[in-house]
Amino acid sequence: MSDFPSIVASFRCEVYWGDCDPAGIIFYPTYFRWMDAATWAFMASVGYDPKRMREEQLAMPLVAADCQFVAPAVHGDRCEVRSRIARFGGASFVVAHDIARADGATLAKGTEKRVWGRFTSGPGSPMKGQPIPEDVKALFLAK
Amino acid sequence: MSDFPSIVASFRCEVYWGDCDPAGIIFYPTYFRWMDAATWAFMASVGYDPKRMREEQLAMPLVAADCQFVAPAVHGDRCEVRSRIARFGGASFVVAHDIARADGATLAKGTEKRVWGRFTSGPGSPMKGQPIPEDVKALFLAK
Amino acid sequence: MSDFPSIVASFRCEVYWGDCDPAGIIFYPTYFRWMDAATWAFMASVGYDPKRMREEQLAMPLVAADCQFVAPAVHGDRCEVRSRIARFGGASFVVAHDIARADGATLAKGTEKRVWGRFTSGPGSPMKGQPIPEDVKALFLAK
Amino acid sequence: MSDFPSIVASFRCEVYWGDCDPAGIIFYPTYFRWMDAATWAFMASVGYDPKRMREEQLAMPLVAADCQFVAPAVHGDRCEVRSRIARFGGASFVVAHDIARADGATLAKGTEKRVWGRFTSGPGSPMKGQPIPEDVKALFLAK
Repeated sequence: MSDFPSIVASFRCEVYWGDCDPAGIIFYPTYFRWMDAATWAFMASVGYDPKRMREEQLAMPLVAADCQFVAPAVHGDRCEVRSRIARFGGASFVVAHDIARADGATLAKGTEKRVWGRFTSGPGSPMKGQPIPEDVKALFLAK
Repeated sequence: MSDFPSIVASFRCEVYWGDCDPAGIIFYPTYFRWMDAATWAFMASVGYDPKRMREEQLAMPLVAADCQFVAPAVHGDRCEVRSRIARFGGASFVVAHDIARADGATLAKGTEKRVWGRFTSGPGSPMKGQPIPEDVKALFLAK
Repeated sequence: MSDFPSIVASFRCEVYWGDCDPAGIIFYPTYFRWMDAATWAFMASVGYDPKRMREEQLAMPLVAADCQFVAPAVHGDRCEVRSRIARFGGASFVVAHDIARADGATLAKGTEKRVWGRFTSGPGSPMKGQPIPEDVKALFLAK
Repeated sequence: MSDFPSIVASFRCEVYWGDCDPAGIIFYPTYFRWMDAATWAFMASVGYDPKRMREEQLAMPLVAADCQFVAPAVHGDRCEVRSRIARFGGASFVVAHDIARADGATLAKGTEKRVWGRFTSGPGSPMKGQPIPEDVKALFLAK
């Protein structure tokens, strides 16, 4: 399922009261908020932090996202999203995320397919997919 | 892709300022929030409104969700989620959602796989999957 | 409390499943999300819709916000935010919001103090407070 | 403004991409989400963690909340919410929150007025305000 020998990043998060619904468990879009934040943290970990992304007018618009929900999380659960690059295409890439509770239990597994995009004239302007530079890809390569 | 001849429900929504991100377009978990709300509205349209769901201790926990993002939505876009049952299993079902802008442009397409669940002892207690009653399935059947 | 004879705008909304917390009632930041959306809708109702705001590089950053929570809302409640201008200052203004359930019950009351701001060089650039034009103020004047 | 010699709790958070709006700064309801999470973390720090709150059927519904926005936060800012009890009433209490960026800059200041409540018959059932036990108050007393 993974074509790219990727490093793995860890993003820590916690289930807050407001992330849960009346069933007393996590409201599922929360997992997608986590995956989004985890991908940005992954980028930051290899040198592309939010400030640099802004300055270089880069963004990572989504093509698709999916998630399987394995076990319910409840308020107070401390969690970790482990992210890796599953595939690099020309202008797109796939990030695979495993979400686990602090005790190791798998909560969810998801993927995001994103485009490596650049704003044509500043934030808020249209984004255009860019070929992903080879030196960017190399940053994610497991040694 | 759809095994069930389903009625189609319409859920109207709008892209608010706070639903968008610094790229000036919709933050993608918003689509999943919409799909969740659209499924609840779909249930309400056939007689299972939130009050009844609460009284009968019913819930619809997720097994999986996915979405393809076709075109970006921006602040102020009026949208519609068109939902239908794609499949009924024993205790699970799949809702397929098409999300379109008021001018008809497709924005996103997604599915949710859910369990027909009952709280074992009130909200906040564990949920248990239930066989979906045939008369519930019949409510979604296109005439 | 209100110094300005303002028109009143109506913004309709509904309490969704994901807007509620494990107590089974609305998660309180939801009211602030509604007030924000109601203010944007109020602006749109007098001609400053999102598209125009973007084109004229206008924004309405917050100085302060508060809300009193009068009665709990639950999943499925249909609500209305009634908004009016409570005060116009030089570069700032106060919007007062009354939030009621469809049956008329008051749920919450809040205010937002905002600046009439302009991006110095496009979205994402710093905003600078602007004197609120008299013809803008006049748009909100009750006849 | 503070009648109670309170201990001070620290809650760490970060401005994520999805917490920001098209102006490129934090969407203001995010501060209220943080204050809510900070209050729960404050309770946990004195022994009332989410699990115990659930088991003892306790909740902390809001009476009012307010926030002043001092400086804008942007994507990637690491922040801290410093919380203290500003006042204990009979069945209610006020939590004051100072929100600062990692470099010490004040971003926002807010308060929450909450009731010490108990579910009358489990989560989702009505909550009833309770006199705050003296030994609970003592947990927050600065030595």
